[in-house]
Amino acid sequence: MTGAPPPAPLPSDGLGPLVAIVGGGQLGRMMALAGRPLGLRFRFLEPKENPPVTELGTVIQAPYDDPEGLDALVDGAAVVTYEFENVPVEAARRLARSAPVFPPPAALAMAQDRLVEKESFRELGIDTAPFRPVSSRGELQEALEALGTPAVLKTRRFGYDGKGQAVIREMGDADGAWDELGGRSLILEGFVEFDRELSILAVRGRDGEVRDYPLVENQHSEGILVRSTVPASGVDEELQWGARELVERVLTKLDYVGVLAVELFQVGHRLLANEMAPRVHNSGHWTQDGAWTSQFENHLRAVVGLPLGPTGIRGRGAAMLNLLGSPPDRGTLAALPGVCLHLYDKTPRPGRKIGHINVVSAGGAGPDGPGEEDSPESLEARIQEVIRVLDAGV
Amino acid sequence: MTGAPPPAPLPSDGLGPLVAIVGGGQLGRMMALAGRPLGLRFRFLEPKENPPVTELGTVIQAPYDDPEGLDALVDGAAVVTYEFENVPVEAARRLARSAPVFPPPAALAMAQDRLVEKESFRELGIDTAPFRPVSSRGELQEALEALGTPAVLKTRRFGYDGKGQAVIREMGDADGAWDELGGRSLILEGFVEFDRELSILAVRGRDGEVRDYPLVENQHSEGILVRSTVPASGVDEELQWGARELVERVLTKLDYVGVLAVELFQVGHRLLANEMAPRVHNSGHWTQDGAWTSQFENHLRAVVGLPLGPTGIRGRGAAMLNLLGSPPDRGTLAALPGVCLHLYDKTPRPGRKIGHINVVSAGGAGPDGPGEEDSPESLEARIQEVIRVLDAGV
Repeated sequence: MTGAPPPAPLPSDGLGPLVAIVGGGQLGRMMALAGRPLGLRFRFLEPKENPPVTELGTVIQAPYDDPEGLDALVDGAAVVTYEFENVPVEAARRLARSAPVFPPPAALAMAQDRLVEKESFRELGIDTAPFRPVSSRGELQEALEALGTPAVLKTRRFGYDGKGQAVIREMGDADGAWDELGGRSLILEGFVEFDRELSILAVRGRDGEVRDYPLVENQHSEGILVRSTVPASGVDEELQWGARELVERVLTKLDYVGVLAVELFQVGHRLLANEMAPRVHNSGHWTQDGAWTSQFENHLRAVVGLPLGPTGIRGRGAAMLNLLGSPPDRGTLAALPGVCLHLYDKTPRPGRKIGHINVVSAGGAGPDGPGEEDSPESLEARIQEVIRVLDAGV
Repeated sequence: MTGAPPPAPLPSDGLGPLVAIVGGGQLGRMMALAGRPLGLRFRFLEPKENPPVTELGTVIQAPYDDPEGLDALVDGAAVVTYEFENVPVEAARRLARSAPVFPPPAALAMAQDRLVEKESFRELGIDTAPFRPVSSRGELQEALEALGTPAVLKTRRFGYDGKGQAVIREMGDADGAWDELGGRSLILEGFVEFDRELSILAVRGRDGEVRDYPLVENQHSEGILVRSTVPASGVDEELQWGARELVERVLTKLDYVGVLAVELFQVGHRLLANEMAPRVHNSGHWTQDGAWTSQFENHLRAVVGLPLGPTGIRGRGAAMLNLLGSPPDRGTLAALPGVCLHLYDKTPRPGRKIGHINVVSAGGAGPDGPGEEDSPESLEARIQEVIRVLDAGV
């Protein structure tokens, strides 16, 4: 592949290469948990105390743009990757002088700015919701007249989990939205009457091989992902191939290495790209227990230059349920077959993602299986039971 | 259950209980990797430098019988467990004054002495090979005359992986065996013409619930396990129940909590107990990728007082292949579907266990599945392919 550096060396001493990760949250944590069995070692750059990656590698406590911290992070590393898309592009470029940085810094530049991101999608022939850049109250008015209401005003940078957004249901809401967000670089997005939200996760290796995971159906509540389900109902080959083709255009354009997630709106048979995350993604957590290779392992395989693993569903399907706010009743949950707990060692706060649960199809009724696996219906019944337990609280 | 202490507290702050582990080898490593997603934290006592548990918890570097090290290990721990059966019983009893120790120290006492172990099996009505204690050359002679040749002379304590053993094929070998092992407490075991070696792994919770994994077929080479396979061919319900009943007698007798492995000889429809390991066991490593709940997770669930997980085979079957001596060709192995790498971060030395591979049934031919899973035949073909890659070396 053009510009692809040679694979990271896999030393013959049996000890694996060091992977440096910018960020020390749950995604870094789950990468380390997936990577240690591959013989990989980890180092993290994270300004916060007691991050989820504690005791999963060396943690350098420094801001993400601290030159000394960055230099310490990359020292001796075979490869650098990151677990969030707001890594300063300058920091990524500094790191890239000492070791390969995957995904490439160009992916950060695209993902960090909603306007650049949507323009890039369009340039690649990928549909999006209609949008307009907004930098003044006047431009907001023009954009609203062009796109109509309802519409969503968003900051171009640093939005996540529904933050930095204001819905404009009718023209009269425009002043309030402007008061809330004005003064920053903004984008107005036209409202799309979509049928549902999907995401496509794909991984691209150093050799250019691309593998896509099955389309995931996502449910949000107040801008935060609460449930991801595979297989998404009614996905035919055409839809899957459409999603694959879409994500492959981005991967190829960026000479990408690693896992890329693209959030999609489905409108009939059309897929519109909403936004992308150049990293492992919450809607891919089901792969830990429900796919032949987890997104975390495949991301690491890609960035260190190992062959990619199979991305199909293992079993009949899976659902991921985010744990938000309060700690779950572990005992009750662990008693349910097919339930896999993934906690992050984060102190609970209202609305905070402190873990997730993967529900997978399980063997028959007995405590030790084997028997037949779940049907789609019995898997959904199992998922609903977990949701009841979670809703009942501790 | 009689004597069972209440479950370890699961704090409401979202941070899980601290599990203290005596030993810092690959079994402790894999426990930590399985336990971190459950929100458990780990501390290890290990005298060696750079053990496999490095950066998976706090490591206290001290001998296993060091009082200060033991006190530091148990300080604030919700529960203590261990990853090898030669933990000094005195050390276990010291730890038990500060926190529950599971499996119970009585299990260590039984497993550390081949004579006590076999006598205990017999007292529980469990068949074993014929045996005699030997503490002098004269007793060896008497034992050989009683049991006949071939027979195996073994040290009663501290044997593993075929070490501390001498085969006596005929009477003339007795002097050589005595020269090699004499002076220690010994046991002579009569030779059993067994059909094959199996093992049964079971887990018992704090509430007394017992779950057994399917019987595993084991292949050894020069006393070292090289392959474990599930399902073992031709195992019917009667054999599985016989094994379960056997292991359950030991579990109940010891008021056991955690995973227990018993190595068995199959002779026709009979099962003879060879030896037991009061811990997670090499012949249970397939459960990481081939069972609904791994032995590591179930051991931890048991010792912290969580409900046990299902123990059935996930998919059609699995094989575990030990990696001995030289590092494998990760790239070639990772390219094979259904191959799961588990490396231990150990410096390779001839014959040393540096990792293992689990081969599981995988989705159809395509890179992203799904398709039908392997048949038993195609799974075995997949396993043979991995063996060829391993035999070909790096």
